[in-house]
Amino acid sequence: MGKILILYFSRTGNTRKMATAVAEGVARVSGMECRVKSTREAVAEDLTWCDGVAVGSPTNFGSIAWEMKKWWDEVPFDLWLKLDGKIGCAFSSSGGWGGGAELNCMTILTILMNYGLLVFGVTDYVGPKFTAHYGAVLAGEPRAEHELESCRRLGQRLAEFVAMHKEGRTDADPVRQIYPREPR
Amino acid sequence: MGKILILYFSRTGNTRKMATAVAEGVARVSGMECRVKSTREAVAEDLTWCDGVAVGSPTNFGSIAWEMKKWWDEVPFDLWLKLDGKIGCAFSSSGGWGGGAELNCMTILTILMNYGLLVFGVTDYVGPKFTAHYGAVLAGEPRAEHELESCRRLGQRLAEFVAMHKEGRTDADPVRQIYPREPR
Amino acid sequence: MGKILILYFSRTGNTRKMATAVAEGVARVSGMECRVKSTREAVAEDLTWCDGVAVGSPTNFGSIAWEMKKWWDEVPFDLWLKLDGKIGCAFSSSGGWGGGAELNCMTILTILMNYGLLVFGVTDYVGPKFTAHYGAVLAGEPRAEHELESCRRLGQRLAEFVAMHKEGRTDADPVRQIYPREPR
Amino acid sequence: MGKILILYFSRTGNTRKMATAVAEGVARVSGMECRVKSTREAVAEDLTWCDGVAVGSPTNFGSIAWEMKKWWDEVPFDLWLKLDGKIGCAFSSSGGWGGGAELNCMTILTILMNYGLLVFGVTDYVGPKFTAHYGAVLAGEPRAEHELESCRRLGQRLAEFVAMHKEGRTDADPVRQIYPREPR
Repeated sequence: MGKILILYFSRTGNTRKMATAVAEGVARVSGMECRVKSTREAVAEDLTWCDGVAVGSPTNFGSIAWEMKKWWDEVPFDLWLKLDGKIGCAFSSSGGWGGGAELNCMTILTILMNYGLLVFGVTDYVGPKFTAHYGAVLAGEPRAEHELESCRRLGQRLAEFVAMHKEGRTDADPVRQIYPREPR
Repeated sequence: MGKILILYFSRTGNTRKMATAVAEGVARVSGMECRVKSTREAVAEDLTWCDGVAVGSPTNFGSIAWEMKKWWDEVPFDLWLKLDGKIGCAFSSSGGWGGGAELNCMTILTILMNYGLLVFGVTDYVGPKFTAHYGAVLAGEPRAEHELESCRRLGQRLAEFVAMHKEGRTDADPVRQIYPREPR
Repeated sequence: MGKILILYFSRTGNTRKMATAVAEGVARVSGMECRVKSTREAVAEDLTWCDGVAVGSPTNFGSIAWEMKKWWDEVPFDLWLKLDGKIGCAFSSSGGWGGGAELNCMTILTILMNYGLLVFGVTDYVGPKFTAHYGAVLAGEPRAEHELESCRRLGQRLAEFVAMHKEGRTDADPVRQIYPREPR
Repeated sequence: MGKILILYFSRTGNTRKMATAVAEGVARVSGMECRVKSTREAVAEDLTWCDGVAVGSPTNFGSIAWEMKKWWDEVPFDLWLKLDGKIGCAFSSSGGWGGGAELNCMTILTILMNYGLLVFGVTDYVGPKFTAHYGAVLAGEPRAEHELESCRRLGQRLAEFVAMHKEGRTDADPVRQIYPREPR
């Protein structure tokens, strides 16, 4: 079984809804065990347990919410040098398009890289002119189908990479998938 | 007269259309002289001439088009240490939302900072859930009114800052403006 | 009088020592009033008071210390759209060279841009192969002369820009200075 | 056999010397085949061939050399959606410490992520206060032992991840290695 952690902080509920959609995407890949936890619930053992992690935080003033940064500064502090090679990705909701959600995803990925994780974005387009190249990004609440699908696709890709890299399942290789990945 | 340079590279025409809208925004502030030039036209003297510059490049594979980077690597090479204190900002069109336009704007601003410029984004929302906090960002062609307005507002803000900082015109201070700057 | 705020968070004392050196650099420019405050001391009024701000945070796991992010998420929350046009810069100490101090400076500048500030780095080299293009960066404690000078030069440049842009003092223009700015 | 590509652009020779050291690090892991190619030599097939790639570019004005960006904009254009899951990392030499080499590494990693690669940095310290958390970074030419070792360790880690993820070799897991990874 591949093991996936979805770790989020949410104030308004938007990022929590994104986390739920990410989990739906993970469930598309067989043989995955998934924990969805907020920063209030997650402990260091959740990180050591998982093969891959998706981290979601609202974009506050262009960057990571302090509550999520506090979690990474404090909770897994002693795990540094013990997490190398796990797989990670990011998602974020901002107040508006152009409001920094991409930059926040890169800040989250920077933290994950500091802990030794391999990080990625989604190459696929999930709708016309809509992608998640550096993580799933939204303005406000996820509502439209393509917005939800960008979160699901992120979770699906994370599960595919975990299956592929941690369990040698070449059937999970994204390059071999037959679902549509290109813009129409 | 405040002097504004709008420097762009465009392959499909999208970034050129954004440049035109940025110029319209500059024209909203009185007493501004504005040059709009592509990387094929602009020379080093355009940079020494201007008080402020808006730089636009398509987002290609998540970052600046090589043609625009080549311009900055070569054309103003000898101007380093001679441009400090000028004002700069960025705009970019990407293939899709979530496709890296914010990251590209930050790469552009990084180059401008290397040349000593003071760089900024637009705090204002120009429509529901639509802003330009790190530069004007679009997916594809600028079409909707709020998309065009994000470009115009970027040019307007650049002109306001030039008027304010270079000419001491407190009337141009964005904080004193009466046009709507907040989300509805 | 130009007004400068130096805002820092320090756990080990390294960032506090950098803040002191930044203040020494501010003092090189005549007619500047300077407040040096930690996140525990600084209030929203310090931001409205100042013309320019230098923000320093240790690099923790490649990004801003949560304590500094918490300050920006909470203390000046109501000042958004009221700070546009002030001038800002960053400084940071990391555990090691290559450890993310540049990335952390860019995260700090991202937050400042979100609040509408004009941000900058230092073009000058302050010693052989030593600069502060995106803010003053160090590994550990500031000790060597060029390390301290990078902090001082940041403060000096901030004061020069405040004098130049806020008070129209062309004598403060960095381009006109006679101290050595180029690598030897 | 794991397959590693080291792709570099070098003007002064500094980045080429870094590439050589990265290749030495790759050779520390058994069963690796390695190609070292400049942007003038490398073709699209080199990317499809490899399991992992280390990309090196000088830091020019705070970001990627245009020659390296041109390579990524043009050469592997048709490989998009066909490279997902390969592993990538970055290295760069800047004119000075604080000159943007970390930012350039992140720009390189951004491009690799756009092509679907999993990207990483090195958690290890390779000398007192010296690491490569976002890629190997230097000012000028690699000379000191810890500078060369940061490049070697990057190549070694890339090879370890390729062995681990592409070939299921748990013996290559960095977490199980016995060489010193922590600061002394």
